[in-house]
Amino acid sequence: MLQTRIIPPAANAHPYPLLIKSLLLSGSRYEKNREIVYRDTLRYNYATFNERVARLANVLTEAGVKAGDTVAVMDWDSHRYLECMFAVPMLGAVLHTINIRLSPEQILYTMNHAEDRFVLVNSDFAALYQGIVGQLTTVIGTMLLTDNAAAVELPGSVGEYESLLAAAEPSYAFADFDENSVATTFYTTGTTGNPKGVYFTHRQLVLHTLSMATTLGSLDSIRLMGSDDVYMPITPMFHVHAWGAPYVATMLGVKQVYPGRYEPEMLCKLIKQEQVTFSHCVPTILQMVLAAPGAQGHDFKGMKVIIGGSALNRALYEAAKACGIQLTAAYGMSETCPLISCGYLNEELLAVGEEQSTTYRIKAGVPVPLVEAAIMDSEGNRLPADGETQGELVLRAPWLTQGYFREPEKGQELWTHGWLHTGDVATLDEMGVIDIRDRLKDVIKTGGEWISSLELEDLISRQPAVKEVAVVGVVDSQWGERPFALIVAKEGQSLNAGLLKEHLKPFVERGVINKWAIPSQIALVTEIPKTSVGKLDKKRIRVDLAQWQEAGSEFLSSL
Amino acid sequence: MLQTRIIPPAANAHPYPLLIKSLLLSGSRYEKNREIVYRDTLRYNYATFNERVARLANVLTEAGVKAGDTVAVMDWDSHRYLECMFAVPMLGAVLHTINIRLSPEQILYTMNHAEDRFVLVNSDFAALYQGIVGQLTTVIGTMLLTDNAAAVELPGSVGEYESLLAAAEPSYAFADFDENSVATTFYTTGTTGNPKGVYFTHRQLVLHTLSMATTLGSLDSIRLMGSDDVYMPITPMFHVHAWGAPYVATMLGVKQVYPGRYEPEMLCKLIKQEQVTFSHCVPTILQMVLAAPGAQGHDFKGMKVIIGGSALNRALYEAAKACGIQLTAAYGMSETCPLISCGYLNEELLAVGEEQSTTYRIKAGVPVPLVEAAIMDSEGNRLPADGETQGELVLRAPWLTQGYFREPEKGQELWTHGWLHTGDVATLDEMGVIDIRDRLKDVIKTGGEWISSLELEDLISRQPAVKEVAVVGVVDSQWGERPFALIVAKEGQSLNAGLLKEHLKPFVERGVINKWAIPSQIALVTEIPKTSVGKLDKKRIRVDLAQWQEAGSEFLSSL
Repeated sequence: MLQTRIIPPAANAHPYPLLIKSLLLSGSRYEKNREIVYRDTLRYNYATFNERVARLANVLTEAGVKAGDTVAVMDWDSHRYLECMFAVPMLGAVLHTINIRLSPEQILYTMNHAEDRFVLVNSDFAALYQGIVGQLTTVIGTMLLTDNAAAVELPGSVGEYESLLAAAEPSYAFADFDENSVATTFYTTGTTGNPKGVYFTHRQLVLHTLSMATTLGSLDSIRLMGSDDVYMPITPMFHVHAWGAPYVATMLGVKQVYPGRYEPEMLCKLIKQEQVTFSHCVPTILQMVLAAPGAQGHDFKGMKVIIGGSALNRALYEAAKACGIQLTAAYGMSETCPLISCGYLNEELLAVGEEQSTTYRIKAGVPVPLVEAAIMDSEGNRLPADGETQGELVLRAPWLTQGYFREPEKGQELWTHGWLHTGDVATLDEMGVIDIRDRLKDVIKTGGEWISSLELEDLISRQPAVKEVAVVGVVDSQWGERPFALIVAKEGQSLNAGLLKEHLKPFVERGVINKWAIPSQIALVTEIPKTSVGKLDKKRIRVDLAQWQEAGSEFLSSL
Repeated sequence: MLQTRIIPPAANAHPYPLLIKSLLLSGSRYEKNREIVYRDTLRYNYATFNERVARLANVLTEAGVKAGDTVAVMDWDSHRYLECMFAVPMLGAVLHTINIRLSPEQILYTMNHAEDRFVLVNSDFAALYQGIVGQLTTVIGTMLLTDNAAAVELPGSVGEYESLLAAAEPSYAFADFDENSVATTFYTTGTTGNPKGVYFTHRQLVLHTLSMATTLGSLDSIRLMGSDDVYMPITPMFHVHAWGAPYVATMLGVKQVYPGRYEPEMLCKLIKQEQVTFSHCVPTILQMVLAAPGAQGHDFKGMKVIIGGSALNRALYEAAKACGIQLTAAYGMSETCPLISCGYLNEELLAVGEEQSTTYRIKAGVPVPLVEAAIMDSEGNRLPADGETQGELVLRAPWLTQGYFREPEKGQELWTHGWLHTGDVATLDEMGVIDIRDRLKDVIKTGGEWISSLELEDLISRQPAVKEVAVVGVVDSQWGERPFALIVAKEGQSLNAGLLKEHLKPFVERGVINKWAIPSQIALVTEIPKTSVGKLDKKRIRVDLAQWQEAGSEFLSSL
């Protein structure tokens, strides 16, 4: 280590730890009258928000929550969730955002594993909670969250959220503490085994917020979110703090809209009624919103949406554009807090035609400030950033999970050679643009070549009759693996193996893909299995496929 | 201290210290072809900039500079300075930016006090350096900076900057080290005694850069600087790293223009030629630029300038606006890195008329993200933020100097009650807006009331014939103190005590000021003394005034 100059601070100097409470110092002071809106149910302003955070802290303290405790939330996306994102960590406690789309068994597992002490439960999940409460090992109390006046029984409840807040003191003297204290945790489902707990400290969340604000505000020709935007997440708040955007919005004093559960009509209504200008979601949710009756004929002009979680294809980009929505791709994962990269057009790309620059809007983008990205081979050698060489994407940034909760061995696997290993195969180019080619485990190895399932999905999605597609590799005695495509056709449109082959041929002729990349089999289905966060569930697709093949299912057609 | 949950990181996890080198990870990758311009002399792109930083690191290492050493720079504002702002701290060394406007004795004092080991000297200062070299106690070597081919002798020189860089390797493996290592130091001149050394760590500069980027990009309706702006500082780089903006610009990959010494014609030429859209300076410099022949008739439309260092008055705001320049006030000081607050119009202010909102553009603004501001009485009691109560402005932020270099007692005075004491008298309002009323020591105490010299200066400056004004307090046996105004009239315009009294009367009638605030004496002069950073030199004004009063000078006229 270099012998640098380090000077002890003056006796009375304030060390200023990076704490989540400091994100309330700016926007909520400047914009006291800006609103936070929850569905049709509630709206209040930032002055009230600040008070409600203090009230919640008093209620939790009264209920016995102490620094170091874990407080879990089971709720739809709401103002209550936002308040928990501040009040819980500001007490020095850990917020556990429960993935409500997991099975009851998995939820039970994560709650015991995270050592939850106190749980806030939406009445919609009261029955689910009732079913697992007997097996919870660490919970000392609960609180009821509800939009309905009707009483619901919740075991161990100290009362209902809104009533408790109304009765509590509207101020709380939040203490300073170590910025490396854990602030949040949640569980990510891998391909095998139990969900794993990632966790983030106050320092990490503050730094993520600052870099994300810079990314949304200062980079690129488009200001994705400034203080005069209106923000609504369409990414669940249990999933990586809704990508961290609520912290950014709060720091800037942006008007925020929370839609509860994702009903397309309600989402459309809120977008129109509250004049939402910035959001983020996975591709399938956007497709759902654009297909909703309420969206038909509506001009979304001025709306900007970040797409992450899955690759953004050109077809969706163009469809959104036709409705007035500017899409930008971004990349991240549960382990990365999540923001790693964001679509960006530099001076040269802005000068070329839109056809060419769009290619860059839909790639994973450039690493945002303070993120270092590289690609590596399996021995830990760094590979060239030439836009062609593929390798595993590895990362350094100030906001990456430093391990998995209570599973040090898995943390060591994640962090090999001092870099976080994403499990994604990517190329990097000279400009730093990350192009995700595939999940390491989804790459199709055929005849000694790697085929990207993502690239194939993109090409297939350009066939006009294709609504949705998922590609996986199937074992092939001659080639090792061959691609298989699961396809949903647009309503009323005809599609078959022959038409698909016709569509893919020109890409082989132009050298975009090689001929082995043409799937040997497709299946036309009405729905594609998705994971709890809306991604293509390739694990499940492989299981289904194996069963169909065994049964000689009529779904399958060979090309 | 609360018992929060702290989890040790995984064995191979990268801790990611906040280091200045990480500011080079983003903009300089995305925008390899963006330019850095030095006067008419040199232009190169960010790809070359990155290489030049590495070359400079190799040259300095070769010259014997080690981590922990202090490397001083005596230069005008140049690309070389920018390169030093990165290369020196990235080596783990400390950059000492020498205030070239100090007297040779003061420069000598600061160099010995800072323990400078190596000095980069512009040929324009070679004679000055020659004059003090015999008394320098810690310097082991120097390097010559010059724009001229003509050879200049510099004692102990290892060579000329450009030649050395050209011969060096264009890459350097910069190591990680403790983020609390000192990165920069410089000296601030107080009212009494020797200059004091403030210092900032890598962590502090990175956090300042992120918050400043957020402020410039995401807050307010105006995007002050985004990646497509063109930046030129008109604040000396020796003074608080040109307010930190070069670090922000570099992180974002913004085109940067460095003007050398401040010749109004060159500044105008560069603004026009390079299409500068963002800058920052003290009021007097802007007045100088706007008065330059090259500025006459030029439309500066689209240019945004932050004004700091002294109060921004409405007359200058309007004059700039007439030329197409949008001014915004900001506040900070050497001890604060410097950004503390920036002009901001919230939703309500944007909705009111421009007349009223301008009042908020020219105040010191709202504390930027992560800054906490309060006002205190002399006993350390917090005073109400009611927009009326005046008190000393005190601060907390992650980037405040933690003391004065090698003077722990002065650091303790600065940090009283755990807050940095600014020495400025201010009000705070509900929205958080800081309104600086005066320097604590410049407040005029008359008849038991406090009169703000700044407010009086603002009111007097609205008299159409007034070009510039400085107000100080003079001892008065009856009132304790009375205000005295030093005034420069506009060329060819007539001004006298009677006209000034006429001008101030309505403000007394409307209750803006009380009648004791009308100066008892004024002096009409051709120039007002300024400090080395362009502020009104009230210390000097008081000395001059005392001499004039003693001599019964004809400058003085009573009101």
